[in-house]
Amino acid sequence: MRIILDGMGGDNAPDEIVKGAADVSLLIEHEICIVGDEPRIRKILSNEKHDSDKLTVRHASEVITGEDSPVKSIRKKKDSSLVRGMEMVRDGEGDLFISAGNSGALMSGGIFILGRIEGIDRPAIGSTYPILSKNTASLLIDAGANAECKPQALVQFAIMGSIYAKEVLKIDSPRVGLVNMGTEPGKGSVMLKETYELLTETAPQAGLHFVGNIEARDIPIGISDVIVCDGLVGNVVLKMTEGMALSISHLIRQKFTEGLVAKAGAALLYNKLGELKKAFDYTEYGGAPILGVKGAVVKMHGSADAKAVRNSIARAVPFMENRVVENITNSICKLQAESSEGTHG
Amino acid sequence: MRIILDGMGGDNAPDEIVKGAADVSLLIEHEICIVGDEPRIRKILSNEKHDSDKLTVRHASEVITGEDSPVKSIRKKKDSSLVRGMEMVRDGEGDLFISAGNSGALMSGGIFILGRIEGIDRPAIGSTYPILSKNTASLLIDAGANAECKPQALVQFAIMGSIYAKEVLKIDSPRVGLVNMGTEPGKGSVMLKETYELLTETAPQAGLHFVGNIEARDIPIGISDVIVCDGLVGNVVLKMTEGMALSISHLIRQKFTEGLVAKAGAALLYNKLGELKKAFDYTEYGGAPILGVKGAVVKMHGSADAKAVRNSIARAVPFMENRVVENITNSICKLQAESSEGTHG
Repeated sequence: MRIILDGMGGDNAPDEIVKGAADVSLLIEHEICIVGDEPRIRKILSNEKHDSDKLTVRHASEVITGEDSPVKSIRKKKDSSLVRGMEMVRDGEGDLFISAGNSGALMSGGIFILGRIEGIDRPAIGSTYPILSKNTASLLIDAGANAECKPQALVQFAIMGSIYAKEVLKIDSPRVGLVNMGTEPGKGSVMLKETYELLTETAPQAGLHFVGNIEARDIPIGISDVIVCDGLVGNVVLKMTEGMALSISHLIRQKFTEGLVAKAGAALLYNKLGELKKAFDYTEYGGAPILGVKGAVVKMHGSADAKAVRNSIARAVPFMENRVVENITNSICKLQAESSEGTHG
Repeated sequence: MRIILDGMGGDNAPDEIVKGAADVSLLIEHEICIVGDEPRIRKILSNEKHDSDKLTVRHASEVITGEDSPVKSIRKKKDSSLVRGMEMVRDGEGDLFISAGNSGALMSGGIFILGRIEGIDRPAIGSTYPILSKNTASLLIDAGANAECKPQALVQFAIMGSIYAKEVLKIDSPRVGLVNMGTEPGKGSVMLKETYELLTETAPQAGLHFVGNIEARDIPIGISDVIVCDGLVGNVVLKMTEGMALSISHLIRQKFTEGLVAKAGAALLYNKLGELKKAFDYTEYGGAPILGVKGAVVKMHGSADAKAVRNSIARAVPFMENRVVENITNSICKLQAESSEGTHG
């Protein structure tokens, strides 16, 4: 299979992107095509150890930056690495597109170039959410693409998230939880109440393992494998996780350097503090899938360095290998057929 | 002035509540009246050191429990400590009501017994949010009373929160931030966009120091002194804070007890780890004010022990002393007068 990599997206492009690609070409069996400024990419590649049988370059003359308007840039920058790369996936020249570029443009590109999967109201961004104490991960969906959602859309997020959790995160029968302000069924906004009911009703036929409402307090300990919420709540969950990890790291550093005894203790804990820091480093956990479009698309962190690029590509492999997009397409199609049968019968 | 304390609300009532009251009677100059099962309360008091000139008891024969329906219990349990206590504030026999009991019943009691302040659409619960790195606190409003809010209500939260932050948390010109999924003005749901505009427009006349949209990532470092959001987002922020603190504490404990070297290091850091643990203990930070009703009402944590009760009462004093309720009433009244002048002029 063939991975299409946006060579020009992100804060550290093209250098770190190309280095990460060179690195991962030695690790995985799939082909990688880097799209972007060919002379620059080739020059970086010439200094990096890589598998030249697996690594190809496709020229694209334009770049969509973080400041570009998502929808406009997709329409105007026809020869950008992002547009060209997505077109390759659309045209069957690639099986996955991965980019550290403009998230909005990636989402717009997914919708306008690849197209929505039939029956999906709103594509969403998934985010791999690390469960530190268990050394596993959950999938949070939507991570910020849709500020407001209808219950129907959240049910689709649950279905897409479950398939991704199963095929990519390797979780059997993933538990689906709906983020709410209490665990009782009647909790939350009208939208959340309706979503709870619709999820309960849909779960058996959609093969969802719905565990009900979950409280944000229990997200970090892995109360569910799929964390369903609208993009606003998803953003708050992710940003609070990041903010608390930073704030607590800061506090630990402050406390552990107060006085000689503390410093001596901290010196003995040097390795453990390193492990903690690593656990808090959310760039370790790979990219974020865009789900609901007709192609596998992964968004890497905008500040991804070579190591993050390598990890993200490696972790994205099962997304294409296990045909997550086809899987979602079939599930939604089957569900629609069954519910229309139900209506007519 | 006189504080009315619900002697029967919370998991540890009446024992810990009464002990906390006994303790605080030795520290503050105000009178405290404990409402509840008089014989039981007197018996506990007889074993505790307290200032008997300041501590009185008022009998109430019923108790509203955590399982009671908020609205029904307020109507049916007329002789409960919660209803009787609030009535005392309504009737001028007390200046503040504080309880560790059923939050919903406290909110309903505030609305039905004390009544909404004129011009306030929705009373809200504020939560003192600790900023660990600065050893200060912000006020988050709404902490969970209103799952859905209109822009107008959020603007009122901003006004009430600013007054509370100034008078109780002692912050001059408190910075008001609106929780959103990005800092740019056009971000978020339709409701958030409208709220942003309304806050910008209202800030000068309401004397608000509105700093714009804030991201959840920056809440723990104290990006604003008043954190404005609907109750759903507020609940997610608070519960994520709690969940991350717990999850990281757990991880620290796990890492720091792996092997002898780590254990030796942890032993040297014993005091510092204690300070960290204390910083994470959100019960340290006192109670949550209910704002927007015609009386000062504070909700303590349901599992408050004597120490938490003592802290909550002591910290609630400026809420009544500085006449926060009158302050809010006047601000809202003035704002309405000005905007109706604006309309007519």
